[in-house]
Amino acid sequence: MPNEIRKDYLLNRWVIIAAERSRRPSDFAIKRVEKAKVKTCPFCPGNENMTPPAVLLYLPSNGGIQKTRDLDGERPKGWLVRCVPNLYPALQPLKKPPTFKQTDYHTRIAGTGYHEIIIESPNHDEHPHVARIQQIRLTLDLLIDRIEEISSHSYIKFISIFRNHGQEAGASLSHAHSQLIATPIVPTQISDEVEASKKYYEKESKCAYCDLLNEEMLGPRKIYEEKNFAVFAPWASVYSFEFWIIPKRHQISLTNMTETEKNSLARTIRSCFGGLAKLLNDPPYWYGFHIAPYGMESNHFHWHLEVYPKLGIHAGFENSTGMYINVMPPETAAAHLREFVENEKLAI
Amino acid sequence: MPNEIRKDYLLNRWVIIAAERSRRPSDFAIKRVEKAKVKTCPFCPGNENMTPPAVLLYLPSNGGIQKTRDLDGERPKGWLVRCVPNLYPALQPLKKPPTFKQTDYHTRIAGTGYHEIIIESPNHDEHPHVARIQQIRLTLDLLIDRIEEISSHSYIKFISIFRNHGQEAGASLSHAHSQLIATPIVPTQISDEVEASKKYYEKESKCAYCDLLNEEMLGPRKIYEEKNFAVFAPWASVYSFEFWIIPKRHQISLTNMTETEKNSLARTIRSCFGGLAKLLNDPPYWYGFHIAPYGMESNHFHWHLEVYPKLGIHAGFENSTGMYINVMPPETAAAHLREFVENEKLAI
Repeated sequence: MPNEIRKDYLLNRWVIIAAERSRRPSDFAIKRVEKAKVKTCPFCPGNENMTPPAVLLYLPSNGGIQKTRDLDGERPKGWLVRCVPNLYPALQPLKKPPTFKQTDYHTRIAGTGYHEIIIESPNHDEHPHVARIQQIRLTLDLLIDRIEEISSHSYIKFISIFRNHGQEAGASLSHAHSQLIATPIVPTQISDEVEASKKYYEKESKCAYCDLLNEEMLGPRKIYEEKNFAVFAPWASVYSFEFWIIPKRHQISLTNMTETEKNSLARTIRSCFGGLAKLLNDPPYWYGFHIAPYGMESNHFHWHLEVYPKLGIHAGFENSTGMYINVMPPETAAAHLREFVENEKLAI
Repeated sequence: MPNEIRKDYLLNRWVIIAAERSRRPSDFAIKRVEKAKVKTCPFCPGNENMTPPAVLLYLPSNGGIQKTRDLDGERPKGWLVRCVPNLYPALQPLKKPPTFKQTDYHTRIAGTGYHEIIIESPNHDEHPHVARIQQIRLTLDLLIDRIEEISSHSYIKFISIFRNHGQEAGASLSHAHSQLIATPIVPTQISDEVEASKKYYEKESKCAYCDLLNEEMLGPRKIYEEKNFAVFAPWASVYSFEFWIIPKRHQISLTNMTETEKNSLARTIRSCFGGLAKLLNDPPYWYGFHIAPYGMESNHFHWHLEVYPKLGIHAGFENSTGMYINVMPPETAAAHLREFVENEKLAI
């Protein structure tokens, strides 16, 4: 395939698909950086006092779940998942809502919001590619609880839930965890997606994402499908082996999922990350949930999870232009991932 | 200073200035990766046949400069600067202008354009922070020649000139060089800047950049100033120690510079990169020239050079939202850089 330049489905974002520089998956295999030896993992059971008090934790209780938090210096043992404020928060809750301060060129807001760590398992290495499906489901439940709580503050405009996997992707601790940052503004990429899908809705009277996921499920970029979720490599993938996980039913946020859908998402995550890890030797990656922001008309938006394996580096060209070079055509990436994800699904 | 969230001068781009996590410059000092031992550098004199034929090179000639190219397999010796096509080009010139192909969600263009290497000196290590000013001036002249030639093709809409410095910033060869990628579309960040400055112009009847550079030269983010150029740390710096070099006279591209301005830019580059290298032990960095695109009304645009030291990593949050966390307030960065750049200016 000759090199071509592709535009994102909705955004004004362009990617050079440099297929002529394309390589086999094995060529992407990166040398694992030796994991930093940590004497004491602050996220492992027994070390609960090394983190700020948990704002939410799940305990097993009579065959069910008891939801609680660390209170009065007490740190309950035997937790299943745990959510703690980041020890070095980028944003922090303030007593009063932040105000915008603006001169001609200088706009600012106090650094108000939330920055939390989601400890996904008591087991240090229970990352999504090897996790028990029930454990992934618990993490999803906790995320949804946090979203509901945090979004009740009217000054919060977006909640970013993301994961840095592997030291090369910026994970400073190797215990299975993801993060949450809630912001008093809507970040660029989210507002661009919401605006673009709104424009599409106004023209076509339907959801752009519903449309495009149906189309991608019929073509060469399809990776995985089950009753409630679809997975594909996006047309203008910015990263090699990038994939998106998206609910088939139109819904704007994680909080809209039915119980069945939550279980389906847990299975989908386990299959896709399992396949990715087997295909590329547990590569470093980032992921981010794109959910509807608050205080912005977004019924036409459709939440999804974007997964970016970190196999190369974005350098001067990408960082100074917002245009990208990707040496792995998404059709080729999808063919490889499809096989490995399918095998993983059969194995779990 | 408590953490705050800042908006870019013109773009819908937000940065958390996490001053509470701030560190001294010495804390940013990164362990240098041992330079890959290259037996034979393809950019060093004597190895000219290891690159594709030069499309432009400068030879000394009777006290002046002769501009020529490699012809019929001949590779002239004794060159001063040299421009060669990238051996693995992301984009390549095609005989006919590319056409857009579009279905509902899938827009693409053939990978048409230019991808060239600018070999900045015959001396392997003559990087901008140690270069002779006359050598930097030759590189600028060659860049301007290439811009004039390449922009004569009407399908070219933007020319990105960028530099990856250091292995950690993605430089695969350590010989002093920068790169040029000419694209048949206007990349996102450039079109966003052009649109935003157009909107400002329509409202205020003046150039946003002229205005803001004058304001920044009066305040705590000023780093350096001479007759023709201004240097400052931008208000919503995305990178720690980020700085912009901008001509004081309104001009839309490198090709608008007078001879005096070209000399002034060469001095400014030498001083700023010299100061940066001394402050942070020759850190890896990226830079990109933001010049006016073609085929888009842009008389209100104002070219500048954006410099991004690579001292941290943009991870899941940044990559999935387009919002950033920067632990170094630009006012603090500017104070440190100001001192080192001033010393460097006095020393050269």
